[in-house]
Amino acid sequence: MTSQNSPHIVIIGCGFGGLEAAKAFAGKPVQVTLIDRCNHHLFQPLLYQVATAGLSGPSIAAPIRHIFRRQQNVTVLMGEVTAINISQRTVSVDGTADITYDHLVVAAGATHSYFGNDAWAAHAPGLKTLEDAFAIRRRVLLAFEHAERETDDALRREWLTFVVIGAGATGVELAGTLAEIARHTLSGEFRRFDSHAARVLLLEGGERVLPVFPETLSGKARLQLEKLGVEVRTGARVTGVDETGVTLAESAGASRIASRTVMWAAGVAASPLGKTLDASLDRAGRVMVQPDLSLPDHPEVFVIGDLAHIECDGKPVPGVSPAAKQMGYCAARNILARIEGRGVSVFHYKDYGSLATIGRKSAVALLGNIKLWGIPAWLVWLFAHIYFLIGFRNRIIVMIDWAWAYFSFQRYARIVIGAWKSERQS
Amino acid sequence: MTSQNSPHIVIIGCGFGGLEAAKAFAGKPVQVTLIDRCNHHLFQPLLYQVATAGLSGPSIAAPIRHIFRRQQNVTVLMGEVTAINISQRTVSVDGTADITYDHLVVAAGATHSYFGNDAWAAHAPGLKTLEDAFAIRRRVLLAFEHAERETDDALRREWLTFVVIGAGATGVELAGTLAEIARHTLSGEFRRFDSHAARVLLLEGGERVLPVFPETLSGKARLQLEKLGVEVRTGARVTGVDETGVTLAESAGASRIASRTVMWAAGVAASPLGKTLDASLDRAGRVMVQPDLSLPDHPEVFVIGDLAHIECDGKPVPGVSPAAKQMGYCAARNILARIEGRGVSVFHYKDYGSLATIGRKSAVALLGNIKLWGIPAWLVWLFAHIYFLIGFRNRIIVMIDWAWAYFSFQRYARIVIGAWKSERQS
Repeated sequence: MTSQNSPHIVIIGCGFGGLEAAKAFAGKPVQVTLIDRCNHHLFQPLLYQVATAGLSGPSIAAPIRHIFRRQQNVTVLMGEVTAINISQRTVSVDGTADITYDHLVVAAGATHSYFGNDAWAAHAPGLKTLEDAFAIRRRVLLAFEHAERETDDALRREWLTFVVIGAGATGVELAGTLAEIARHTLSGEFRRFDSHAARVLLLEGGERVLPVFPETLSGKARLQLEKLGVEVRTGARVTGVDETGVTLAESAGASRIASRTVMWAAGVAASPLGKTLDASLDRAGRVMVQPDLSLPDHPEVFVIGDLAHIECDGKPVPGVSPAAKQMGYCAARNILARIEGRGVSVFHYKDYGSLATIGRKSAVALLGNIKLWGIPAWLVWLFAHIYFLIGFRNRIIVMIDWAWAYFSFQRYARIVIGAWKSERQS
Repeated sequence: MTSQNSPHIVIIGCGFGGLEAAKAFAGKPVQVTLIDRCNHHLFQPLLYQVATAGLSGPSIAAPIRHIFRRQQNVTVLMGEVTAINISQRTVSVDGTADITYDHLVVAAGATHSYFGNDAWAAHAPGLKTLEDAFAIRRRVLLAFEHAERETDDALRREWLTFVVIGAGATGVELAGTLAEIARHTLSGEFRRFDSHAARVLLLEGGERVLPVFPETLSGKARLQLEKLGVEVRTGARVTGVDETGVTLAESAGASRIASRTVMWAAGVAASPLGKTLDASLDRAGRVMVQPDLSLPDHPEVFVIGDLAHIECDGKPVPGVSPAAKQMGYCAARNILARIEGRGVSVFHYKDYGSLATIGRKSAVALLGNIKLWGIPAWLVWLFAHIYFLIGFRNRIIVMIDWAWAYFSFQRYARIVIGAWKSERQS
């Protein structure tokens, strides 16, 4: 059915958008090359669970070439796309191999943004990849180990103070889970301090947590966070992050928070690959695409997911996984339409709602006009995430992990890889 | 029951020996400080499964302080013991804190030995820690990814050639599992080569594989390895390892094997901490201990596990986990005897048998005089390892992982952490 003369489609990135696009070409007379820097598709909504030792890495990651083992028209290449040449219709992989395409889908996603303060990155890691998650897990678990070894009370308090910057979904999930770890998971395991003494601060520059949710749900989320023991500070503008803590703007009241473990959940920026496309970008670096997701003057190039800026019904489409999946499917369908000489479709975003979890039996959900919080929202979140998690086996394992964690308060992935290194020691 | 004036016992290392010793002090009027470089006890016999993507790290590791959460007389410290001062009765942790002991148990284990060729370490990683296992997993999985990207046939063959040096239990397990991965797990997932074309070579300097087993079982093991597709070369003395392969001594026939992925399972050396004890060492650096496991002239210092050299019934006790556990228990009992003014016991090694797995339904077992191979040996191996694996939850998860792997031929932990880096690319 496919041959060397079939149209060649290159897809850059195998997040939710790229994965969906590649799947949509199953059984079609095309050749697909799917390129990703990682060997796995990552179920990013659960990445905070890996960072907080609730799940192992493989539980939320699936090898890309295993997903496509039976889809013979897909060739998977692991590597980094370093340049796109729109006029030549080629992409460069790691600066060496040039691959020619007939149609291109750019689904390279987003990365952290420190708003120009890149020096903060070393002290406040973000959470986008498995590598990030393991780095945060290591920092959090080692902070408690440092506290057990520390003989100075003031320094011990610094090791037992955790700061999360940014109160979007990731920040709220991290802060809520950290509070649970201190109060429950580690309870009774240390001899020189009580893990309940650990402080978790959630700093938000804006006026409320979870700003994409309606105000009532932001309020409910804040109450649930405070019930878990998280100190929430809104209107707290961060002006500095270094090895020993966070500095806040004068207006925020306290000028300094001494902490050895700071996490960044405040800003995202689109992949720098967007800049190489010779197209207009929005403030966050996202590519302004046509209503059919293609580039102006380049109907053979599509940009989807977190890298694309598009408005539907007058509102920008949010950078969430359902939107990326829908764009992936739409772009693939439009490429097939072009190949078959049919007209392309305009992208329409179907919003199924928003979910954010806070902790044990705590979450908020917005489903159409229905607002949920507490246990009902948490149950919706639980089943939605297990349902969408890739791979039958992963679903079972995640369910067992969670059932175990729920009843035992334990987190089985509390493993720091590698030996003690004292480079972070004061 | 315990107080500040209770005798203070310091245990260095929480492998099988140190763990067993610390547990034996449960409910006794002593204070125990347990120091380990890692935050987890590792079930080392299954480490090759983590390295070959069959199990995730947390499945075979348990946080040390969680194991001892209810044993109030144990304080767990994460850190590296950098010096032992026998005359002052102190140990230094990371060169800073000095900890005074009344009794000391040194259970610091063993590490790889490259027989003086330390430059080989960069090209042929060994397998002792979770970090090692992840490094090998990354190398093996990325070699296949390199092969898919490679356009030169000769170079592709180098990427698809895997060499394991040393045919003890770890080497046999690695080689057998790698052959299974090439033949089954990755089957059909690559578009530019057939994964069955991958070669796995097992090099052994001695005359037979698994030299600690009787000759008949070595023969059975070799046959099973060859049936899985492993090329076994005995009498193959390695004289060089570099980035592009392995050089053999002239007597071994072939002088050069071109390979991009070499693994080291040939030699172990006792922990360098043994040298600081001012005691006699054997050729492998192990400390010669008294029949009660204490040091000559230092009845308050015990050395156990892979770091100890002791003979029972005229034979040296092997460096295996049951021996380490028995020594840990014996050392703890002897310390309690000294504290209570009773006489100490002499260590007796109870040999329950030897087991080595080769692959799917392939293993060899020596239980007393009973020799088993094939499916019966494999079933003994399977149940013994699940039984001894620490933690109820881990046992369940490992069983599910294995059942899944058995029926699907899949290995769920095929996740390379981090993005593609081309530093190993030719």
